[in-house]
Amino acid sequence: MSFRKIAVLGAGNGGCAIAADLTLRGYEIRLFSRTESRLIPIAKRGGIELVENGATKFATPYFVSPHLPPVVNGVDLIIIAAPSVAHEYLAKNLADYLIDGQRILLTPGHTGGSLHFAKLLGSFGCRAEVMLCETVTLTYICRMPEPARVEVYRRTTNLRCAAFPGKHTHGLVKEIQEIFPNVIAADSVLETGLSNINAIMHPAGMLGNAGWIESTGGDFLYYREGITPSISAWIEEVDRERLEIVRLLGLKPVRFVDIFHQAGLTSEDARASGSIYRAIKESEPNKTIKS
Amino acid sequence: MSFRKIAVLGAGNGGCAIAADLTLRGYEIRLFSRTESRLIPIAKRGGIELVENGATKFATPYFVSPHLPPVVNGVDLIIIAAPSVAHEYLAKNLADYLIDGQRILLTPGHTGGSLHFAKLLGSFGCRAEVMLCETVTLTYICRMPEPARVEVYRRTTNLRCAAFPGKHTHGLVKEIQEIFPNVIAADSVLETGLSNINAIMHPAGMLGNAGWIESTGGDFLYYREGITPSISAWIEEVDRERLEIVRLLGLKPVRFVDIFHQAGLTSEDARASGSIYRAIKESEPNKTIKS
Repeated sequence: MSFRKIAVLGAGNGGCAIAADLTLRGYEIRLFSRTESRLIPIAKRGGIELVENGATKFATPYFVSPHLPPVVNGVDLIIIAAPSVAHEYLAKNLADYLIDGQRILLTPGHTGGSLHFAKLLGSFGCRAEVMLCETVTLTYICRMPEPARVEVYRRTTNLRCAAFPGKHTHGLVKEIQEIFPNVIAADSVLETGLSNINAIMHPAGMLGNAGWIESTGGDFLYYREGITPSISAWIEEVDRERLEIVRLLGLKPVRFVDIFHQAGLTSEDARASGSIYRAIKESEPNKTIKS
Repeated sequence: MSFRKIAVLGAGNGGCAIAADLTLRGYEIRLFSRTESRLIPIAKRGGIELVENGATKFATPYFVSPHLPPVVNGVDLIIIAAPSVAHEYLAKNLADYLIDGQRILLTPGHTGGSLHFAKLLGSFGCRAEVMLCETVTLTYICRMPEPARVEVYRRTTNLRCAAFPGKHTHGLVKEIQEIFPNVIAADSVLETGLSNINAIMHPAGMLGNAGWIESTGGDFLYYREGITPSISAWIEEVDRERLEIVRLLGLKPVRFVDIFHQAGLTSEDARASGSIYRAIKESEPNKTIKS
């Protein structure tokens, strides 16, 4: 086992799923969130309930804390499962505590996450030789219907992962595969960054449903009801631009529907049709997810 | 009476309200729509039901037709109550039939309607000396809950009207006031065009509710539920740009909330608060209008 002690930074859907699943699989997990109110229900219940395939398991992480230094102290791997707006805060507060050889995995990397994070660490004076890598999206399709309880609908498949600098990709991906067997190596963080279909799908879905979300508090099925033919056409246009950038960078263009299918999120029929609307409509793991 | 024979082009909410109301008030109305399916229910019922202030009246226009020439032949006034995308079709098909002295009222003018229409008439070879004018918005806040039946929630107040060229404004507005007493003179079509709050309010409302509209077929209250705080903030930004243009053109800047209040669409309290969200939320005439 390359990793034993793991820090998970972020206690949202993704972070809690990772913390619970890895705990259940024998890893020593420290869970951090700067939002204390997220940790209190976990501390009160003594852990996180993980629901998957109809089975409920209870995981008690090694510890949870709103303080970063004890969470990252001496861990082999730091998993950042936080939105990119948290990168600056995390890099600033990690810079003095990181040590040579620690691995950092951004999951998801968002678009340009590793590049951003490496730059931030440097700007905050971090001199430790850490190794950075990122995945395209989350390792689990999941939601927290209530605090300290996470429901996993699907483990993402063929999840691309790349390191920055790229020379570390081969070694890091092999290590990461021990804890996330669903991860595969990408050519570079350009590939992972530009395969981020969340960045392609979600802005149109959010902007084009802003009134609905605000008026109902998000009480409708985001993918099933919110991604209508017009919203899909809008996503299609954004994807067309992404593919153009991919081509100009000399990378291999892979359409939204193909990435979505590779990730295990839609049917082969929908992929073959090329229709983004159908791909999202026929997404089994996303079907109960609200806005 | 300056006008007796009037053509109404367009059989949507606005056109049907005008045709019915003016018929009831003794004018000889010819109603045109290029969409024959709009006219069939009117022809079948023998007219249009007009509901206002709890009273239902029945109006039988002089005739309805999907053919333009007989509709405009010999009329004093042509009222265009159609979306601006219909201008090209109408100008092209009117160009040969217009005669000197006919008046054309665009209601609403949309933004730049008279300028656009004058240009189109010229480009289609019209040499008749017609006089063009436009109002900022519709003369009635109304909806058709079913074909051949129009419900009027409010007659717009202080409805600005201007002619192109501007030298005709004084005379034309006086004439228009005979049929629409709620009309007042504006300085120019720049003023009417840039007071068009539909152009400010509706794009954000439509784009920001695109998914909701498409998913439910518009079955929610457009103004009450669809114009949320975020959508209002978006409208506010668009209004800020409009006011900047108004200032740069040396016109008098009048805020969205003030125009909305002048039109009789919201409370004095909402106007005084300056909040677009409140102004729309407290719009009595708009409160039952669906998307």
